[in-house]
Amino acid sequence: MISFEEFKKLDLRIGKVLSVEDHPNADKLYILKIDIGGETKQSVAGLKPYLKPEEILNKSVAVLANVEPNKLRGMESQVLVLAVTVDRENKEVMLLVPSKDAPAGSKIS
Amino acid sequence: MISFEEFKKLDLRIGKVLSVEDHPNADKLYILKIDIGGETKQSVAGLKPYLKPEEILNKSVAVLANVEPNKLRGMESQVLVLAVTVDRENKEVMLLVPSKDAPAGSKIS
Repeated sequence: MISFEEFKKLDLRIGKVLSVEDHPNADKLYILKIDIGGETKQSVAGLKPYLKPEEILNKSVAVLANVEPNKLRGMESQVLVLAVTVDRENKEVMLLVPSKDAPAGSKIS
Repeated sequence: MISFEEFKKLDLRIGKVLSVEDHPNADKLYILKIDIGGETKQSVAGLKPYLKPEEILNKSVAVLANVEPNKLRGMESQVLVLAVTVDRENKEVMLLVPSKDAPAGSKIS
């Protein structure tokens, strides 16, 4: 169980995906640049088996902005893009998005 | 900063909203019944100033399924519905939804 206080520590917000590139050294990873509201952060996301670049580019997506930075195959991931897994085997993984247009930086709570 | 281990403790998933009713004792709260994948949970959500019942009913939405239960004006809230706040003063608050159809219970990570 998670207390509401613990949940409130998460900086969840809407980010806008500015670019999608292949990771230079990993088949399943993309390097995303994401505007999280006035700042651009890099995310290394394991979405390549499931989504084409054009399904991610320019989308507004839910991100965890204050996750501890992590290196994935040598590339720094600064924010975590939230994804919905329906069926990994059938490659049904999708993004989590606002139900209407929401600017980058909009808070999720 | 949140570690990835801490983030993984959250049981975030897609829930389908089965009913939307007014809280009997609070102007700004709805009582939602939500299928979180084989089980139905109740959520007390402060969405009434922002969204009409028909904008929530039957929608697939992001929920935190393992938040500690809480009572709001006498009604138990068992899960937390995630919402995106664009501009509270102008009543621009929206839901967080999967980018394509996703069944209730689909995991968010």
